[in-house]
Amino acid sequence: MIYLDNNATTKVDPQVLEAMLPYFSEEYANPSSIYEFAKKSNHAVKEARGVIKDFFNAENEKEIIFTSCGSESANTAIRGVLNMNKSKRHIITTKVEHPCVLNLYKTLEKDGYKVDYIGVNSNGELDLAQLSESINEDTALVSVMYANNETGVIFPIEKISEIIKSKNKETKFFVDAVQVTGKIPIDVQALGVDLMGISGHKFHAPKGVGALYVNSKTLITPLIIGGHQERGKRAGTENVPYIIGMAKAAELAVDTLKYEASEVKRLRDKLETNILKNVFNARINTGGIVNRVPNTTNIGFEYIEGELILLHLSDSGICASSGSACTSGSLEPSHVLRAMNVPFTAIHGSIRFSLSKYTTEKEIDYVCEKIPAIIEKLTNISPYQEELEALRKRKA
Amino acid sequence: MIYLDNNATTKVDPQVLEAMLPYFSEEYANPSSIYEFAKKSNHAVKEARGVIKDFFNAENEKEIIFTSCGSESANTAIRGVLNMNKSKRHIITTKVEHPCVLNLYKTLEKDGYKVDYIGVNSNGELDLAQLSESINEDTALVSVMYANNETGVIFPIEKISEIIKSKNKETKFFVDAVQVTGKIPIDVQALGVDLMGISGHKFHAPKGVGALYVNSKTLITPLIIGGHQERGKRAGTENVPYIIGMAKAAELAVDTLKYEASEVKRLRDKLETNILKNVFNARINTGGIVNRVPNTTNIGFEYIEGELILLHLSDSGICASSGSACTSGSLEPSHVLRAMNVPFTAIHGSIRFSLSKYTTEKEIDYVCEKIPAIIEKLTNISPYQEELEALRKRKA
Repeated sequence: MIYLDNNATTKVDPQVLEAMLPYFSEEYANPSSIYEFAKKSNHAVKEARGVIKDFFNAENEKEIIFTSCGSESANTAIRGVLNMNKSKRHIITTKVEHPCVLNLYKTLEKDGYKVDYIGVNSNGELDLAQLSESINEDTALVSVMYANNETGVIFPIEKISEIIKSKNKETKFFVDAVQVTGKIPIDVQALGVDLMGISGHKFHAPKGVGALYVNSKTLITPLIIGGHQERGKRAGTENVPYIIGMAKAAELAVDTLKYEASEVKRLRDKLETNILKNVFNARINTGGIVNRVPNTTNIGFEYIEGELILLHLSDSGICASSGSACTSGSLEPSHVLRAMNVPFTAIHGSIRFSLSKYTTEKEIDYVCEKIPAIIEKLTNISPYQEELEALRKRKA
Repeated sequence: MIYLDNNATTKVDPQVLEAMLPYFSEEYANPSSIYEFAKKSNHAVKEARGVIKDFFNAENEKEIIFTSCGSESANTAIRGVLNMNKSKRHIITTKVEHPCVLNLYKTLEKDGYKVDYIGVNSNGELDLAQLSESINEDTALVSVMYANNETGVIFPIEKISEIIKSKNKETKFFVDAVQVTGKIPIDVQALGVDLMGISGHKFHAPKGVGALYVNSKTLITPLIIGGHQERGKRAGTENVPYIIGMAKAAELAVDTLKYEASEVKRLRDKLETNILKNVFNARINTGGIVNRVPNTTNIGFEYIEGELILLHLSDSGICASSGSACTSGSLEPSHVLRAMNVPFTAIHGSIRFSLSKYTTEKEIDYVCEKIPAIIEKLTNISPYQEELEALRKRKA
């Protein structure tokens, strides 16, 4: 089995699992309890908070809130900021945000918020001029993902932050960093963001844990109201094992950043180069040279059906996807590729390959070997034979 | 170490851990993915949903939503029902609900909801007449815990359901069942409840997973908006290991119910009897015989300070608590005992002991042996010597 869907979820690092194990059946105390037995779990959560603080390069541990997932982080950030500034009714986000965030904005629109959706160019790069023009006095929040989950394109967060602050100092800036975690360094202070969300299972911690950075100048209401946990910002007994696991994963991720930027990138580039060379109807959907996370490529196979490609890849033991797992099974073409104006005939045949530190050269070689035959087979049964013939001639 | 704080959290059953382990680093696929590799995690979540459906005795698996904790289950249920019935602004709950639920109601009051808080008698039993009188046409929700976390008193859910439906058929009934799970059988259909929340870590699954039953006639909005997971009722990639762990814990809990009702109850009763016999200033705060979960006792040690008792117990390796872990460290006297009109001089010295299937006779014997000396020592330094002398004479 060759797993090239690491943007959907990742394998838990065995070191992460090892770090968590004592906290299930041995150090199982509720960290809020006052007896001696609870000191270890309490201390472990504190230490983990310090690690995550450093991972974000936050100023203070009080700026870290542990959550149950990236979606909860985003919901907490967005609703939390809006609830604290109820008179402001304008939000700016992008057309290519994760479906989870977009769905929340659709709900907020029904609640009377005005939401502007910033577009991207054909390389998947954000229209900063449009962003700048959209900010006004009523803008409560700008919410931009750090990198797109489908294309891997990294957005210029620092520049966006400067634009926002130059237009409206009171506008809060939330960054969904789920897709960059463990792939590029994160520094909330240098970037100038107010809130940033991450999800453990995208960087080799388990599914079911996330974190939210909220800088000390930004007030939010809690999404889950109840106990005093997370300084009143998120009720619920702390998920001690996963919090410790995510901290371990964060430490490992920092150690692996260089490897991601060199080796993972090399393998991703090798996969791209090979497919482009050997498959005449393949295209890199991000086009020219753009700033991308090192592990992701999005390749359009023109005039064929992505669903079929995925099934054939699966038969060959290769896991890839056509977009976010949250929208798997939906027949809607990718909203990200549509926003980029990828030709309709390529959108439907677009596949995302996302590597990890566990991806080997042998695996990439195998995928490079398998893909041309799969695509050729599907190309031969495509109803678009004339168009394919024209394309073949153009490419030759 | 003797752990008698199982109402705060429990040890993860090694069989639960074993069931979860393959889903961290082996079967780690996102269950929403469409390739072959994801079938096992997808199927495992489906099976777990079936187990939890049976655990609730729900009619349909679609009535089960996996959440990240009991607090999330309660927040989802309460906000979800209210959002779906925005014209109705009246809620009924109890004075003795978990602080998590009470805090949510305080917030809802600020948002303009009218909340009635039903009282209890000196045994901790709910005032059903007051409940009945409070229900009116505007009542959107009645929310009652199945058993109180501090006293273990079980509330007559079936009777309450009948009262509600006889007064207003449209009023929804949410039951916070966190404190009964694994202690007494649950049957949502027989009880006639609309929504019921549970938390894994109270019955030997890990902290960080819960479930919410919502019957098919009850509509709710999601608390965490985003992906299609949980049929659109709760976004976020499924916490596959914990979901499987909670299902295993539910199966084990059903197997242990008889043991809880007989052996755990016998040990709890032994602890109570011994303390009452050997400590003149001890009282069972639930007074006469009331319907309680078998593992819990709440004992008031008059004229001494609970905090000091807990620290002395901790020094002897015994873990107990003065109330919910969520309020540990707070100097506020228990709102539950206050609602019961427990004498002020006993509230401050009240200790909750909560047993589990892992509690042994030897442990209880050790606690029975230790407590009189600890209490005597603290009684001797109490500033209430006159009152203590009078009490001693009365008891003699």
